[in-house]
Amino acid sequence: MKVITTIQALTAEIQAAKQAHKTIGLVPTMGYLHEGHLTLAQTARAENDLVVMSIFVNPTQFGPNEDFESYPRDLPRDIALAESVGVDLIFAPSVEEMYPQDGGIRIHAGEQAMILCGASRPGHFDGVLQVVAKLFHLTLPTRAYFGQKDAQQVAIITTMVRDFNFPLEMRVVPIVREEDGLAKSSRNIYLSESEREEAPAIHEALQLAQDSFLATGEVGYALAKAKAHIQARTHGRIDYIELLAYPDLIPVTETTQQVLLAAAVYIGQTRLIDNSIFTLKEGL
Amino acid sequence: MKVITTIQALTAEIQAAKQAHKTIGLVPTMGYLHEGHLTLAQTARAENDLVVMSIFVNPTQFGPNEDFESYPRDLPRDIALAESVGVDLIFAPSVEEMYPQDGGIRIHAGEQAMILCGASRPGHFDGVLQVVAKLFHLTLPTRAYFGQKDAQQVAIITTMVRDFNFPLEMRVVPIVREEDGLAKSSRNIYLSESEREEAPAIHEALQLAQDSFLATGEVGYALAKAKAHIQARTHGRIDYIELLAYPDLIPVTETTQQVLLAAAVYIGQTRLIDNSIFTLKEGL
Repeated sequence: MKVITTIQALTAEIQAAKQAHKTIGLVPTMGYLHEGHLTLAQTARAENDLVVMSIFVNPTQFGPNEDFESYPRDLPRDIALAESVGVDLIFAPSVEEMYPQDGGIRIHAGEQAMILCGASRPGHFDGVLQVVAKLFHLTLPTRAYFGQKDAQQVAIITTMVRDFNFPLEMRVVPIVREEDGLAKSSRNIYLSESEREEAPAIHEALQLAQDSFLATGEVGYALAKAKAHIQARTHGRIDYIELLAYPDLIPVTETTQQVLLAAAVYIGQTRLIDNSIFTLKEGL
Repeated sequence: MKVITTIQALTAEIQAAKQAHKTIGLVPTMGYLHEGHLTLAQTARAENDLVVMSIFVNPTQFGPNEDFESYPRDLPRDIALAESVGVDLIFAPSVEEMYPQDGGIRIHAGEQAMILCGASRPGHFDGVLQVVAKLFHLTLPTRAYFGQKDAQQVAIITTMVRDFNFPLEMRVVPIVREEDGLAKSSRNIYLSESEREEAPAIHEALQLAQDSFLATGEVGYALAKAKAHIQARTHGRIDYIELLAYPDLIPVTETTQQVLLAAAVYIGQTRLIDNSIFTLKEGL
């Protein structure tokens, strides 16, 4: 495995791979790798000739009061983990390498970014789109790998790829779950024993809502069922449960083909997110 | 020469060219081709295996009170002219083909777009960046060809290519001039005989300012010289004469490497633009 830090060295590697007609899988990360990242890398490994993982804590997606400086970093550990799952190339640039100058041009996410988790993070998804567009241009991936856990991020990047004709395939890797259905998260360790027993109700509620919506096409009824389930089975507080057209994140209509059902719930002090993305049969 | 109108057909052509390791030259146009466009195409022809010309009147770069509907279109004539200079592929999509849906994501030009010609066209350069980014992703050019005559457009696109790491070379093709130095323009036919005799003073003034700036490094003095020349030699009204760092279009500093000297002058009722882009010797 190679670890490179400059755009010049990365470009040489990518050009050589393209020249040899290799497929390229890109796994963009901010490092401090966990099981979710490794699942993305393993999926990329199975599907591509060259697997590139970027490790870059992107300052432009952090708000002024967010934790850019204190965001955890451990490159030696990340390198060992990436190598263990077959990554070929780590691209770990400095901030100066990625942003040597600023001509003031920005990509702005639209109303997609103002709802769900984006409501409390103005500008966050603009920064995500900026760094992802740069990484796409630098690594020229055949396929790019993102975790479905961050469904709003995936939806907004998918929209950019679609509307700006990026020549790549978005690969959205399913949520990894515990045996009882709880979505894996580094935050799950904060749950008390009784909270941990309640937490699978979020996934159950999303399943109930999905089944209900597929059977009836009624958004309000499906969401009410999910909310009732969470209220009955947990002491948690619902931040949001939404059912929206995917990837546009607008209300579902007769022409909607894919749906995102997403929830954020506080179980005790711990905010957990989960979601389901599913396809509608024709003629809903 | 092939004329195609769908993204699907274009992608097949581009993939075949890439598979064969061909270099690709892109000439983006809004059609109604004139000598300037043909010079771009001829330059692309000399430097690339495959020459792609896009012909698309892009609605997103027209303001609400501008002439999108009445903008001149003549595809049969354009096809004949493009073929005469060796274009391989014309991509002439419909608006629906280019913008089938809108997820609301936009590229916004920064302060670069608020000066010079951009001051009177809010949003114009955002639309230019949107369509150019899409065309770059669709045609994957080795080199993209733009005319230096539209210097602000070239500066802003060059900045996007630089700051978002588009994997291509920007080729800025010099201004074509009449024998007396007047920049060629389809607007020159509006000049009366006496106005036509005055018009070369714009290019002369830019040359005087360039020489002065290279000799002294004094922006204000260089611009004053240019203004005095235009005032002495024409009855025209100066819209702007500016000397800025290129491509960022900010005031020149000790680290500036390239300079744009640009003018817009009304000669009678006709607004003429001209410019010079030049490199500074080290240690100005």
